[in-house]
Amino acid sequence: MAAFTHQLRVRFHECDPQGVVFYPNHLMYFDVVLTELWRVAFGGYGDMVESGTDVHVVHAALDFRVPARFDDALELSMEVTRFGETSITSHCETRRGGELLVSGELVHVCVTTGTHAKQPVPERLRAGLTPWSRPQ
Amino acid sequence: MAAFTHQLRVRFHECDPQGVVFYPNHLMYFDVVLTELWRVAFGGYGDMVESGTDVHVVHAALDFRVPARFDDALELSMEVTRFGETSITSHCETRRGGELLVSGELVHVCVTTGTHAKQPVPERLRAGLTPWSRPQ
Amino acid sequence: MAAFTHQLRVRFHECDPQGVVFYPNHLMYFDVVLTELWRVAFGGYGDMVESGTDVHVVHAALDFRVPARFDDALELSMEVTRFGETSITSHCETRRGGELLVSGELVHVCVTTGTHAKQPVPERLRAGLTPWSRPQ
Amino acid sequence: MAAFTHQLRVRFHECDPQGVVFYPNHLMYFDVVLTELWRVAFGGYGDMVESGTDVHVVHAALDFRVPARFDDALELSMEVTRFGETSITSHCETRRGGELLVSGELVHVCVTTGTHAKQPVPERLRAGLTPWSRPQ
Repeated sequence: MAAFTHQLRVRFHECDPQGVVFYPNHLMYFDVVLTELWRVAFGGYGDMVESGTDVHVVHAALDFRVPARFDDALELSMEVTRFGETSITSHCETRRGGELLVSGELVHVCVTTGTHAKQPVPERLRAGLTPWSRPQ
Repeated sequence: MAAFTHQLRVRFHECDPQGVVFYPNHLMYFDVVLTELWRVAFGGYGDMVESGTDVHVVHAALDFRVPARFDDALELSMEVTRFGETSITSHCETRRGGELLVSGELVHVCVTTGTHAKQPVPERLRAGLTPWSRPQ
Repeated sequence: MAAFTHQLRVRFHECDPQGVVFYPNHLMYFDVVLTELWRVAFGGYGDMVESGTDVHVVHAALDFRVPARFDDALELSMEVTRFGETSITSHCETRRGGELLVSGELVHVCVTTGTHAKQPVPERLRAGLTPWSRPQ
Repeated sequence: MAAFTHQLRVRFHECDPQGVVFYPNHLMYFDVVLTELWRVAFGGYGDMVESGTDVHVVHAALDFRVPARFDDALELSMEVTRFGETSITSHCETRRGGELLVSGELVHVCVTTGTHAKQPVPERLRAGLTPWSRPQ
């Protein structure tokens, strides 16, 4: 229903000589919040891989509105916006004090651990993520 | 006419425990090749900032087809696909031995150094980048 | 008296294809805990620079005993072990569940913001850090 | 006899808001040149691991003299300064136009791939690295 949220503080080295967060690091932040969401939703990335499912990121997109700076306390929110046959689309927003700085999405495809062959989204992931999914 | 190309070798720490390049690092690679292109096209980022123009990245998108691995020799190619009034859209492709691994784009907006107010794309950038631009 | 402590969780991309934290990232972690200590001790790096003092790191050393892994909850502790005329030596230890993984030190030299000329350690820094300093 | 050398150009995101290379990245640079040296000396890290030997970094130290900046062309040189029973000590220096910016060392311990039990330095590594070793 509600998006999953996670706070983090911008580290010095994540900023570039412009004094703002180097833009690819916002994609890294998305990955950090995804890790936290998946831990809560179904036990986390490591458990999933051991249970036979791995994932590939096949698409990422980001829109940058306002730069983030060193020491900023950021709030990231994430929700699943689409379950495909084999894919999961996640939408992420990065805010500082309520102001939207960055938004974007990640598309993961489920594969079999080891062989990397595509597989349907396991029920365990679908069920675990549903509380943080936008109704389709 | 032809795209600008730049080679780089994947560093150990750019790969994650899956043994492949951590996907946000492909966006970092795009930034590296852009830096090299801009150096050749109009003297580089530093010169541009000193001459009164800075840039903001407002959009980035990536499609991941095949993973890259430690020690891979990658060839990145970049070309400008659109000059807007204040923006420059760059398309990037990452290959290994001719095989396309990743493609994507970056949209930069020109701003005035210091004030960060939007400004038209300077003629110097437009002229310098034209040899590596797709006809519009 | 006691060392300053800070918790952090190992991020996926901070680990390398060996599945452990890429060793230079332990030095980055030291910098993160230093940032947190300095914020508490005297208002933080940004305030210090504005008040006319900047710092250069002139020496760093690390001893690695046990590797850290993805998702590990680490506890870092830091204390000042020496105030020189112009320098501050900080000792850092990284633990997981009480087990010592990494130890090391950082030596900073105080310089004047802008000119980068060496200057004595400001009283504000010395006083602020004293509660987390080992008696000399 | 002579040290092994490798050139690299400082990337934008390797610099921090001070405008200089974030100091832990100099340790990352050491790792990059080590990778290149090992490739030339005995076929590289991947081959070594497949042949049954892996390594752990147990110690690292760095002395920072002069900061490096975005776009600097750096020359790194590395030589082995000591072969122990199970360890290899490598000395590294980072220069810009002949000026020494950073020096430091890395100590690796050889372990058996998989079990991570200490093992003597394989003859293949010792022989391969000898041309880039300081006489003991």
